[in-house]
Amino acid sequence: MDDRKLVQIGEQSVSLRSPVYLQASAAVGGTKEKKGLLGSFFDCIASDDMMGAKSWEEAESNFQKKALSLAMEKGGVRTEDLRYLLAGDLLGQSMASSFGCASFPIPFLGLYGACSTCGEALSIGSLLIDGGYANQVACVTSSHFASAEKEFRYPLDYGSQRPLSASWTVSASAAFILGAQKNAHSICKISAVTTGKTADYGIKDAQNMGAIMAPAAADTIKAHLKDLGRSVQDYDRIITGDLGLVGKEALLQLLRRDGIEIKDRHMDCGIEIYGQANETECRENSNAGGSGCGCGAAVLSTLILRRLQKREWSRVLFLPTGAMLSKTSFNEGNSVPGIAHALVLESME
Amino acid sequence: MDDRKLVQIGEQSVSLRSPVYLQASAAVGGTKEKKGLLGSFFDCIASDDMMGAKSWEEAESNFQKKALSLAMEKGGVRTEDLRYLLAGDLLGQSMASSFGCASFPIPFLGLYGACSTCGEALSIGSLLIDGGYANQVACVTSSHFASAEKEFRYPLDYGSQRPLSASWTVSASAAFILGAQKNAHSICKISAVTTGKTADYGIKDAQNMGAIMAPAAADTIKAHLKDLGRSVQDYDRIITGDLGLVGKEALLQLLRRDGIEIKDRHMDCGIEIYGQANETECRENSNAGGSGCGCGAAVLSTLILRRLQKREWSRVLFLPTGAMLSKTSFNEGNSVPGIAHALVLESME
Repeated sequence: MDDRKLVQIGEQSVSLRSPVYLQASAAVGGTKEKKGLLGSFFDCIASDDMMGAKSWEEAESNFQKKALSLAMEKGGVRTEDLRYLLAGDLLGQSMASSFGCASFPIPFLGLYGACSTCGEALSIGSLLIDGGYANQVACVTSSHFASAEKEFRYPLDYGSQRPLSASWTVSASAAFILGAQKNAHSICKISAVTTGKTADYGIKDAQNMGAIMAPAAADTIKAHLKDLGRSVQDYDRIITGDLGLVGKEALLQLLRRDGIEIKDRHMDCGIEIYGQANETECRENSNAGGSGCGCGAAVLSTLILRRLQKREWSRVLFLPTGAMLSKTSFNEGNSVPGIAHALVLESME
Repeated sequence: MDDRKLVQIGEQSVSLRSPVYLQASAAVGGTKEKKGLLGSFFDCIASDDMMGAKSWEEAESNFQKKALSLAMEKGGVRTEDLRYLLAGDLLGQSMASSFGCASFPIPFLGLYGACSTCGEALSIGSLLIDGGYANQVACVTSSHFASAEKEFRYPLDYGSQRPLSASWTVSASAAFILGAQKNAHSICKISAVTTGKTADYGIKDAQNMGAIMAPAAADTIKAHLKDLGRSVQDYDRIITGDLGLVGKEALLQLLRRDGIEIKDRHMDCGIEIYGQANETECRENSNAGGSGCGCGAAVLSTLILRRLQKREWSRVLFLPTGAMLSKTSFNEGNSVPGIAHALVLESME
């Protein structure tokens, strides 16, 4: 039973027995994503947002397939090397994943955590490797502006006006290869994970997802620091998935109530992806910022991993945030529960 | 690194280091479920299928909450004992789970595997315990006839006629408590898991889910037997989730092509739940049989665990089957990928 010695710490975290290596990543973006400061760091930009498909949903599937293929190529990984494929997206019945990377002949675990799915996939993937259940796994998530607007809000053809608090769903997919061993490709290490609980503050405005997700992000950050006995200063950056400008302010304020100040170290993928982390540009390009499963995943691949690889940062807390919204729950007048799953990413020695 | 010794076997399976114990279960059913032979074994039957809610989706959430509360009560488990809550359902954005058991303050992992979600939850839950990441976890899934018809087919008010190949989505939720230790409550052991790959034979008929899922079930059974070096005779029963009458025949034929005969040992939860495993009664009650995330889960709780507990069976292979169908993918003319995840359940010594 020694093998089963509990490695859980605190209430919600696990400190891995030994690091899991993030061996390769690839990001595929759309035309709007190309225009942002991160545009040149995508591995592939679709020539148009349909990416050769007949529907937006199929386009999103094509983004996923391309991202996974590229990550496998960059990591020198064959299909048969991958023990599990963990994937999810925002669409009903995770449609982009079911028709996207699920078509790869790899044991498939479908996940749903709204825009936090990238964090959920990397967390479960890390635990499966740490537990000795796999040598290598792939984690893939995606979102697409047009399929998401169709799924959650208004068909694009309506030309509906968007409030300032609304975010712009990122058209992107990113894929990550995790492995038990350090190899020549390895970009960074994953050393711990903190699994979020849902937080529902009763907010019903589907055009203000930042406010919905901020409480979940605050809870996960607090749980993480407490579980690991760490302070904000132990991290070069604390990076949320897609809070945007409104959610970022809410997060900073919520944490201040508990005496935690992260302003100097906080970064939000939703703010980074379109603007140059410049509030005016962010607003002009996307109202409150980018969002979606593809947002955090793409910024992880194009920006965060790059900084870790160059050792500009040595340790970051990455926590994709999700608003568990459905068209039906919204139409029935329900509030939106939020969730956030955190991972500790560390640069290689 | 000894702790990380790979315990994967074959291509898709894991033989757990030591058994995970299924410590408690509870099933909540609707009015139609009450009438089946298993009706008296449900822990709770809703007085009507709305279960006090204003919408079908909220009703399904209430089924989940009740099932989890009852399972925790039966297992003598408090919220704080549960390290992870793994849950999913059929609705867009797993709505029943987001508003159902996700409201419990437990680190939450949302899953989507269509009707195979119960198998996915129990598999990941078992691995999290075996890996030392949790002492106890809860796994919850649900489906509801009315919310599923609204989500996937026609509003009930249309009174659409259903073909003979159609299945009847079971209104039920079942919750399971898994634990690292054998305790006074323990019902059976989980000793191995086999994670399915998706199988897509190009079938587009959303009213014939049995045919869609049969290839995935056949693939997972073949992979399982090969990985563990076992034969059909090593199992008292091989139990699929919700293939129904049409899918059962397809499964038997597909396996025969590979020289595998499971007829004498095969059971399907979809056939059991309404009829008394009698084809005529099954047809009269539900056309091809019951289906949904709640189908396999409820039959596991009301029938399979009971037989294992009484030692009428000593080892069964339980594999919930899923058809990864979305209304959008169907309307766009896509085929439906199937998937099946298997668990080995063994009676206590």
